[in-house]
Amino acid sequence: MSLARFLDLADFSREEVLDLLALADRLQQHPEPKALAGRILGLVFLNPSLRTLASFQAGMARLGGNSFVITPGQGTWALETRLGVAMDGGAAEHIREGLPVLASYCDALGIRAFAEGKNLDADVSDAGFKAMATLIDKPLINLESAINHPCQALADWKTLDDLAVAPRSKFVLQWVPHPRALPLAVPAAALHMAALRGHDVVVARPEGYALPAAVMDKARAAAALSGGSVTETDDRATALAGAQVLYAKEWGSTTHYGDADGDARLRADLGHWQVTGRTFEDAAASCHLMHCLPVRRNVAVAEEVLDGPRSVVLHEAHNRLVVQMAVLHRLLA
Amino acid sequence: MSLARFLDLADFSREEVLDLLALADRLQQHPEPKALAGRILGLVFLNPSLRTLASFQAGMARLGGNSFVITPGQGTWALETRLGVAMDGGAAEHIREGLPVLASYCDALGIRAFAEGKNLDADVSDAGFKAMATLIDKPLINLESAINHPCQALADWKTLDDLAVAPRSKFVLQWVPHPRALPLAVPAAALHMAALRGHDVVVARPEGYALPAAVMDKARAAAALSGGSVTETDDRATALAGAQVLYAKEWGSTTHYGDADGDARLRADLGHWQVTGRTFEDAAASCHLMHCLPVRRNVAVAEEVLDGPRSVVLHEAHNRLVVQMAVLHRLLA
Amino acid sequence: MSLARFLDLADFSREEVLDLLALADRLQQHPEPKALAGRILGLVFLNPSLRTLASFQAGMARLGGNSFVITPGQGTWALETRLGVAMDGGAAEHIREGLPVLASYCDALGIRAFAEGKNLDADVSDAGFKAMATLIDKPLINLESAINHPCQALADWKTLDDLAVAPRSKFVLQWVPHPRALPLAVPAAALHMAALRGHDVVVARPEGYALPAAVMDKARAAAALSGGSVTETDDRATALAGAQVLYAKEWGSTTHYGDADGDARLRADLGHWQVTGRTFEDAAASCHLMHCLPVRRNVAVAEEVLDGPRSVVLHEAHNRLVVQMAVLHRLLA
Repeated sequence: MSLARFLDLADFSREEVLDLLALADRLQQHPEPKALAGRILGLVFLNPSLRTLASFQAGMARLGGNSFVITPGQGTWALETRLGVAMDGGAAEHIREGLPVLASYCDALGIRAFAEGKNLDADVSDAGFKAMATLIDKPLINLESAINHPCQALADWKTLDDLAVAPRSKFVLQWVPHPRALPLAVPAAALHMAALRGHDVVVARPEGYALPAAVMDKARAAAALSGGSVTETDDRATALAGAQVLYAKEWGSTTHYGDADGDARLRADLGHWQVTGRTFEDAAASCHLMHCLPVRRNVAVAEEVLDGPRSVVLHEAHNRLVVQMAVLHRLLA
Repeated sequence: MSLARFLDLADFSREEVLDLLALADRLQQHPEPKALAGRILGLVFLNPSLRTLASFQAGMARLGGNSFVITPGQGTWALETRLGVAMDGGAAEHIREGLPVLASYCDALGIRAFAEGKNLDADVSDAGFKAMATLIDKPLINLESAINHPCQALADWKTLDDLAVAPRSKFVLQWVPHPRALPLAVPAAALHMAALRGHDVVVARPEGYALPAAVMDKARAAAALSGGSVTETDDRATALAGAQVLYAKEWGSTTHYGDADGDARLRADLGHWQVTGRTFEDAAASCHLMHCLPVRRNVAVAEEVLDGPRSVVLHEAHNRLVVQMAVLHRLLA
Repeated sequence: MSLARFLDLADFSREEVLDLLALADRLQQHPEPKALAGRILGLVFLNPSLRTLASFQAGMARLGGNSFVITPGQGTWALETRLGVAMDGGAAEHIREGLPVLASYCDALGIRAFAEGKNLDADVSDAGFKAMATLIDKPLINLESAINHPCQALADWKTLDDLAVAPRSKFVLQWVPHPRALPLAVPAAALHMAALRGHDVVVARPEGYALPAAVMDKARAAAALSGGSVTETDDRATALAGAQVLYAKEWGSTTHYGDADGDARLRADLGHWQVTGRTFEDAAASCHLMHCLPVRRNVAVAEEVLDGPRSVVLHEAHNRLVVQMAVLHRLLA
């Protein structure tokens, strides 16, 4: 298998994902420091990053390649994405020029473009990222779009493999508090990944925070292929009974999408959804805490859990590097 | 020919420019991935960049070298440029220390320093950049100064070659609208380049936007060497009749230089200078639209033109990488 | 000697420092462009940088390695450092996650974290940096902490060697004016370095700007080992009589630490502590001006001195690259 693009784990069969994870393992054990000699990765960050920014640069360097980073609006022109508008405002450049130009300087391009957070349908359909993708005629990597984060999903899958978490075990994706509404990309990607890996996935979230039907349906389709299952509930205690994995994640209200005040009113009473030691009372003794990071301590997850033995968040974050090297190898070697 | 500095296309004979373009062609066809092994390019951006930032890093990497980027004021101290002042304000470091220090860490240095836009004579004489250049005892590249952008000019020349645009054909440099006054660097560099390539160049611009006499004279001197010509007019229709190239560019009023309000009053009535499909009515059937980018869609140039077959703006932008690799090769190989 | 960490010059014996300087000399004369092939340095800047940012990237590249740069708050989440707080403010990530994750992507990590400037004891004990250091299980480099700047100290030592300044000569560390209170890191590091090199060190500073007792004691301990001495005075003229080195440096009041208004009242009358040509009247004829940069011209040091023959500030700054390559070689080769 060679890759042309890495945009969505759902673009690949279960076997293709396992192949990619096997390559990640192989590169971890047998480094190939010259595999990408002379190759250049362009990284465009329309939003902040720490893991993605560092791990893609490190990954290219470990494979002998090189990279450049563009953060529009920081030492670079802000980019307009809409068509048909008179560009008389703050954005000096349009993605229809900016992105093809950057693609023409490199061998593969990665783009991070978070959800706008205004229109749920537009974000769930990933309209913005898909419009960008049509402009690029090079291997392209989704560094997190409005509704997807395939690099995180692949790293999480590898983490579950590394920890020998059984595929048919109970995987709980639990909503956790945050000062404001965050995008749906990671919960959607983690849910689909866990379903495709074959878990019995339970989405535990308060009223008003149900994941969109399209996101749930996509995960159910993956579960149907793998023998897993996908359910949802607002009853945390029941959800966590017997869980092998608690995947904590913040996201915004879907009933009040794009309505910051409405969302804030809802979440004002939801501080008790914070993950603490007690959250694990009825979970499996070996239940792991996963989180994609960054995580707000004592808001989303209590310090006692993050600093305790259940947390595998650093393992997950390190696996970003490991799996992305496999993606880069497939795209560019 | 080996280069010590790449500051102005006018520093080279027509034959030397052709040599450099031949090297660019050669490197495009026969890559030299180890030519600059161990060499380091320092890039100092006192102003925003996208193409220059990405293409110089990519170019060094493609030739086996490496680079570092400094953007004063962003993670780095703001730099003072004036002499004799007590530095008790926002700038923590002076260019007299900062630039020589950075030069001492690399094998060649590139500097971007836009026009201040206050004093026309100071900007036209490139006083600021020249003062910086005296501080550097390494190969130096002008990444765009107050009145010059030689990398853009060389990329544009190559684009004309690639498209087989005849040297004696009509090349129109046309002023286009923008929300505010922009520097004279690109129009001055494009004008000189087209004249040195041998075109019959017409500068089409509204009243109040005539290019400075020194800029026009320099282009006329180049035309005298190459057999081209340089004229100017405020009559767009006549200018474009039979044109093979429309080079669109925004710049600020020279009669109201440094007077933002006066310039804004002038340009308020000049929206019709936008390039649209109709602009090409009397141009040659094959007339190309050139622009250095970034371009404001539907303000400077209509979407229909940028997305249509006349536009070669992406080709120009890609050639930035191609010609700069030749410049780097000459400076450092 | 191989290094596990480079956090404080005081962690090494005088002989180990001399070894490191000998390696710097050797690499300067006999480059090793492949010594760190495949190695990756992560650089985390919680504060601005110019020399450190550029020279570490250049140094890794000259040794065949690579690096990535993270500047939290600029294209990256701001980082929380306190334990036990509910992270409901501006910082999206805690150092307890962020730093170990970054360390897991590279072979060595450098961290810059300036003094908070609120609590003198906390800053003098370097509590913040030490807390970060406990989170990192990779080779670690102090890129300037609250109370230390070992890379600067090592570069300064090499500069004194290069200039053949005799170890037992008089070295004056003199306070100079600045618009606001600056950290104690460089004066503390320079004082200790000069004492360990064997100088007769005089700290010349106004009332209210005495260096903390712990800083003075550490330097005196170093002097005891090397045969040097450490004294202090508020009498500049006496201090400078016969001096071979004037090391100028800005720092904040220690009697009004964290009290910006109180410090500002003190320094309002101290403009005459600026180093000018007259400052050297009773110094040795060959007395050098040293400064770590950035320096505010005509506030801290007069232009006539910075641009004159006494100034060795550019030499010092270049030596940052030279000695850091030795540090990187020891940590990673």
